[in-house]
Amino acid sequence: MSGDTLPQRYRACRQETLVRVAGLSDADLTVQSMDDASPGKWHLAHTTWFFETFVLARFARHWTLFDERFGFLFNSYYETVGERQPRPRRGMLTRPTLDEVLAYRRAVDEGMAALLDSTPAPAAASLVELGIQHEQQHQELLWTDLLHLFAQNPLRPAVVPSWVGPAVVAASADDWVEQRGGIVRIGHSGPGFAFDCEQPAHEVLLQPFALAARPVSNRDWLAFMADGAYRNPLLWLSDGWSRVLAEGWAAPLYWRGGTREPVQMTLGGERPVNLDAPVCHVSYLEADAYARWAGKRLPTEAEWEHAAPAGGGAVWEWTSSAFAPYPGFRAAAGAVGEYNGKFMCGPYVLRGSSCATPAGHSRASYRNFFHPHLRWQFAGLRLAEDRP
Amino acid sequence: MSGDTLPQRYRACRQETLVRVAGLSDADLTVQSMDDASPGKWHLAHTTWFFETFVLARFARHWTLFDERFGFLFNSYYETVGERQPRPRRGMLTRPTLDEVLAYRRAVDEGMAALLDSTPAPAAASLVELGIQHEQQHQELLWTDLLHLFAQNPLRPAVVPSWVGPAVVAASADDWVEQRGGIVRIGHSGPGFAFDCEQPAHEVLLQPFALAARPVSNRDWLAFMADGAYRNPLLWLSDGWSRVLAEGWAAPLYWRGGTREPVQMTLGGERPVNLDAPVCHVSYLEADAYARWAGKRLPTEAEWEHAAPAGGGAVWEWTSSAFAPYPGFRAAAGAVGEYNGKFMCGPYVLRGSSCATPAGHSRASYRNFFHPHLRWQFAGLRLAEDRP
Amino acid sequence: MSGDTLPQRYRACRQETLVRVAGLSDADLTVQSMDDASPGKWHLAHTTWFFETFVLARFARHWTLFDERFGFLFNSYYETVGERQPRPRRGMLTRPTLDEVLAYRRAVDEGMAALLDSTPAPAAASLVELGIQHEQQHQELLWTDLLHLFAQNPLRPAVVPSWVGPAVVAASADDWVEQRGGIVRIGHSGPGFAFDCEQPAHEVLLQPFALAARPVSNRDWLAFMADGAYRNPLLWLSDGWSRVLAEGWAAPLYWRGGTREPVQMTLGGERPVNLDAPVCHVSYLEADAYARWAGKRLPTEAEWEHAAPAGGGAVWEWTSSAFAPYPGFRAAAGAVGEYNGKFMCGPYVLRGSSCATPAGHSRASYRNFFHPHLRWQFAGLRLAEDRP
Amino acid sequence: MSGDTLPQRYRACRQETLVRVAGLSDADLTVQSMDDASPGKWHLAHTTWFFETFVLARFARHWTLFDERFGFLFNSYYETVGERQPRPRRGMLTRPTLDEVLAYRRAVDEGMAALLDSTPAPAAASLVELGIQHEQQHQELLWTDLLHLFAQNPLRPAVVPSWVGPAVVAASADDWVEQRGGIVRIGHSGPGFAFDCEQPAHEVLLQPFALAARPVSNRDWLAFMADGAYRNPLLWLSDGWSRVLAEGWAAPLYWRGGTREPVQMTLGGERPVNLDAPVCHVSYLEADAYARWAGKRLPTEAEWEHAAPAGGGAVWEWTSSAFAPYPGFRAAAGAVGEYNGKFMCGPYVLRGSSCATPAGHSRASYRNFFHPHLRWQFAGLRLAEDRP
Repeated sequence: MSGDTLPQRYRACRQETLVRVAGLSDADLTVQSMDDASPGKWHLAHTTWFFETFVLARFARHWTLFDERFGFLFNSYYETVGERQPRPRRGMLTRPTLDEVLAYRRAVDEGMAALLDSTPAPAAASLVELGIQHEQQHQELLWTDLLHLFAQNPLRPAVVPSWVGPAVVAASADDWVEQRGGIVRIGHSGPGFAFDCEQPAHEVLLQPFALAARPVSNRDWLAFMADGAYRNPLLWLSDGWSRVLAEGWAAPLYWRGGTREPVQMTLGGERPVNLDAPVCHVSYLEADAYARWAGKRLPTEAEWEHAAPAGGGAVWEWTSSAFAPYPGFRAAAGAVGEYNGKFMCGPYVLRGSSCATPAGHSRASYRNFFHPHLRWQFAGLRLAEDRP
Repeated sequence: MSGDTLPQRYRACRQETLVRVAGLSDADLTVQSMDDASPGKWHLAHTTWFFETFVLARFARHWTLFDERFGFLFNSYYETVGERQPRPRRGMLTRPTLDEVLAYRRAVDEGMAALLDSTPAPAAASLVELGIQHEQQHQELLWTDLLHLFAQNPLRPAVVPSWVGPAVVAASADDWVEQRGGIVRIGHSGPGFAFDCEQPAHEVLLQPFALAARPVSNRDWLAFMADGAYRNPLLWLSDGWSRVLAEGWAAPLYWRGGTREPVQMTLGGERPVNLDAPVCHVSYLEADAYARWAGKRLPTEAEWEHAAPAGGGAVWEWTSSAFAPYPGFRAAAGAVGEYNGKFMCGPYVLRGSSCATPAGHSRASYRNFFHPHLRWQFAGLRLAEDRP
Repeated sequence: MSGDTLPQRYRACRQETLVRVAGLSDADLTVQSMDDASPGKWHLAHTTWFFETFVLARFARHWTLFDERFGFLFNSYYETVGERQPRPRRGMLTRPTLDEVLAYRRAVDEGMAALLDSTPAPAAASLVELGIQHEQQHQELLWTDLLHLFAQNPLRPAVVPSWVGPAVVAASADDWVEQRGGIVRIGHSGPGFAFDCEQPAHEVLLQPFALAARPVSNRDWLAFMADGAYRNPLLWLSDGWSRVLAEGWAAPLYWRGGTREPVQMTLGGERPVNLDAPVCHVSYLEADAYARWAGKRLPTEAEWEHAAPAGGGAVWEWTSSAFAPYPGFRAAAGAVGEYNGKFMCGPYVLRGSSCATPAGHSRASYRNFFHPHLRWQFAGLRLAEDRP
Repeated sequence: MSGDTLPQRYRACRQETLVRVAGLSDADLTVQSMDDASPGKWHLAHTTWFFETFVLARFARHWTLFDERFGFLFNSYYETVGERQPRPRRGMLTRPTLDEVLAYRRAVDEGMAALLDSTPAPAAASLVELGIQHEQQHQELLWTDLLHLFAQNPLRPAVVPSWVGPAVVAASADDWVEQRGGIVRIGHSGPGFAFDCEQPAHEVLLQPFALAARPVSNRDWLAFMADGAYRNPLLWLSDGWSRVLAEGWAAPLYWRGGTREPVQMTLGGERPVNLDAPVCHVSYLEADAYARWAGKRLPTEAEWEHAAPAGGGAVWEWTSSAFAPYPGFRAAAGAVGEYNGKFMCGPYVLRGSSCATPAGHSRASYRNFFHPHLRWQFAGLRLAEDRP
């Protein structure tokens, strides 16, 4: 996909979003299942609003806003751009209808096609690229949020009835990849796209370490559960133990059935837990407890990026790194400068990609980030260990 | 309608529910806008579940449940009948789809038609009657809840685009209907239907009093607002003043635009406030403050019923009576005994009916009830006064 | 005591307050254990502020406020009088110290003595009487709130180490006092003191009924518990069942030890439950559930007052009457008009008096009132029954 | 102090705690002003419990617990040691009295004196040292928490009436201390005491940078306020802007009077803000916004430690480093292993010391840590800047 032209990539990206909601109803795409999640229709419209606001309204001649009210409805968090629908109330928007949102998408796609045909200015092209990457992020969130919604429904419907889960993990739990450490370079540089938070590339000093050859599996996690880990405060960060007690954590999110015959809600509906697949839908707090229980630790994001682990791609992997600016980080000018920087307090970094990540949207320097108590992402973990 | 046969009345009632959601989408009927409200689709299914559970499953031969899981999804609060979807999570049910719920309605209607054709036992007929009355209650709630949902949407869509608001109040604010009081009889007796809480009929002792010939109008309410009533703690019950401060009450619910050019969200969308229409969407706490400001009081429910006010029907009218059992009240046996009695702590009684009440669903002894801080019902007030 | 002169009664009342805190420390009297309770020191100062504000500042010549800042600190809820320390922050006031508060009491007592010596105007005398009654109410609350505080302390200290609990209930559970009903007069009239909410006296119509000869005992309550009543939703009002689940109610407040060897925190510390004493520290919601379980009901406040039950005085007795204005009720003019009227939405009426009520502070027309979920008052119940 | 013997240092430390509460009442030392703070009496007892539990009970011959119930009352968070009074309920403990707590202190001090006289085993000596350091931490918290409590009191009493605030900042805002960076060593090694989280010492790679010669002053902060910074969302982290809106932040904690004549509650009572003193009682979120407004950044903790800034000691200085384990960190074995490690998720690191820190309790490697929204600590900031 990286060899494709920008118009091709734009079209492919926009199409992928639609593929992901095929077969779903207006109702499925309207409801918001919790404050952290957004409705599917909102994802469809917001990604479109991004192109309209940051590209068409600035660079297209004679562009008339599709609907002046959509700025209020579909702005996510850009203070620079103006007021917006409060996030926890996104699920109130039964109107515009799904058909109207799809019409909005088509209108913007037509405007974008015209703009892209005429060789846009570099500033515009750069924003189109950002818009594509942005929409790819929402493609994963679309599934993540729909899975959460459908998991609230006692009928356990499937977001993607034909869903095939991630491949099993081949390596043994005892396989380790050794790393010598030293001064290494991480972060993005060069011509390809990267988000502002992946830059600037810079040097860090690593001690010798080893990374597990594969993520922790469901079978591993069952051993952790069977050992009473969810009842042992000494394994947990203080915040973790508070969550265990307050929210009754006793297994990964979406699991039922205890340790005997566990089932887990997936994009394909509720299914028996595949013991050889990577564990998924655990929080950082759980990942940290698991590592302590195992006598190991989580890798830092610099270790992860330097080692660029193989055997991944099924689940995002929690690192022990709080999301923070790289040395010399500067937010971009203007509204898009609000993209990542203002979230650099609280979340932890996840690396790699997941079975819900669209093709072409991963790279070694990629920094995903979520708050440490959150479980609804496709997130697991991989162990690390110091070497003398 | 009261002259119609039971099968006729059943069909008419079921048809009226569908008329009320004509033109609305699955999404419109799926979202829950607050804990106190229910989704439209839930109302459609719950009223159907009521007939299936209390009539068909008991009295129809060979009835097979339409879907065994619906008992869990669409039970409202009947502890006797079993576990249920938690009320604040009713809005998660994007499935079953609207089409599936409509199919459920048709299947139950067919079963009911067969049952009603064969002259049901008195116990069954009585439950059918209760089911009709129950569905009529939900017809009003359907509109009440949809109005609340649509009022959350900045696009201010219309639930009923052709909606014509309630008629204006004709009488002058100075017209009073005098009542001598004495020992009077209130409550229901005789052959017609009434809910358990309207019974038994009994005697109460009333002092001489007078009732206003009409409900308080929007014009009246503007004078209350213009006089700073929402900023004067001395006019309010303690709970009322707390709500004014905590929730920023400064006008009836759904009003915008202050006292100059007030508009109000209605079933027909946002419209200029009709000054001669009864004020609507005020809480008991506001109604009480208004009466104190006016130097009058609210009527008791016994006064209201005894006087059986004319000039009503546009808005439910708050009374000063806490919802309580009548002397000698006995809840019905079985699950339907949970109908009203368990709510007899906290709510206040409203009398009359509103522009959202279905035809045929009002009578002098009718006791509607809601918590005193709630505003999303079609509720207003009428003043009363002691007579020496 | 009613034969005493006003100055005598003033002095006796003020002295009784001090007797109730004998032996307690500044710390004991400073802490606030929950929003509904007030610190002991606050009770001591607030009752003093009442006399200073409503009597001395208006009627005493040359009275200088003891401390201008005390108006802010010790006003309870009188909007007319001005701003005040928020109720949930009353426990922050480690200063003024207990010694300073006691000095405040002495200074006001001296001012009051001078005023009372000189035969005050009727308006002043009437406010002194109100102030005495008001302080008597706080004498009970003082113990009620201290008991709640000491019950939070794992050391279970005694508020009154020499405390002797209420006498046992002599009558059998099967003794009923029959009442014919008819038009009866309730409420206060005549020369003695009564709060505004006890007036005007008026006629009500009662059906024939019977009242139990004694309150429900701890032994009775154990039978209720042993029958699983706290686990049976069908016995409870909807609000009651919600509280049972949310707050884990399984016995009266302050009980531990289950049904086998129950102990209860009392003013004298933690003690074995006296099975023959009236049950105490139950909410209206529990009292209502007990009555339903017993196949009886609670009396209305009119029934209670008309029968003027004997065998009481150990616990306040919940009635089924929501606290509401009597027909023709008018709040007093001025700040003291805020005394009762603004709470006439939500609470239920309790009748009688308790073992914590000061001598001389009870009468047949007395209306105590608390919200139906509250348990920290000295409250129990007595059963009633319809008669044909 | 470091030249003193262990028994001398023990006695001096214990004495310093008492000096800090001289003149305060049992009530002052009993109340808990918020969940994050603890009562003064609790600090007095908890530090004593630490010596009794981890030293006397293990190493003293024939030690009998002073009161068996104190383990429950005064354990802070050691899961290994057992159950404890819930943190938000520490303020309920009016008993034991202050006198009893002081008697507890004396009894433990006697036991400790005997133990220390007899040359304790190294393991015991090490725990005594930890206990001293632990008590010194609580000495600062004692004042921090008392200041918070007294700031809730409209009388604004002084914790330390003779309090003299921190010295003014001498350097100009334009003075910068240049640093070349490179591979530098941070963290503790060698013989002196350090907490587990300061270890192991390790190398980090720093880019060239500069640190301001002094912390940000109140005068600087007023310019930030005057520029509307508390109303400009673009200056804030997302969490910061949420707090500004939700909690109405418009100045540092304890400030009143706007930008004209600002006053601030201090240990000596409410006083005019000293414009040349370091700003104090700001959160990390505010410190970060200030740095962004100034076009600078906060230093990392490694930068801070490497530069070991002069001109400090008045306020703790926020760094941009999330509190995390150093490479190779191992928690100590046993209960004291819960000391720091379990809080390594959420807080940010502060470096230096404050005017409330006891003498002898600071070192270059010291890592203080608090959640980024907290303001009640004696915390300010110092700016940093990249160098090319």
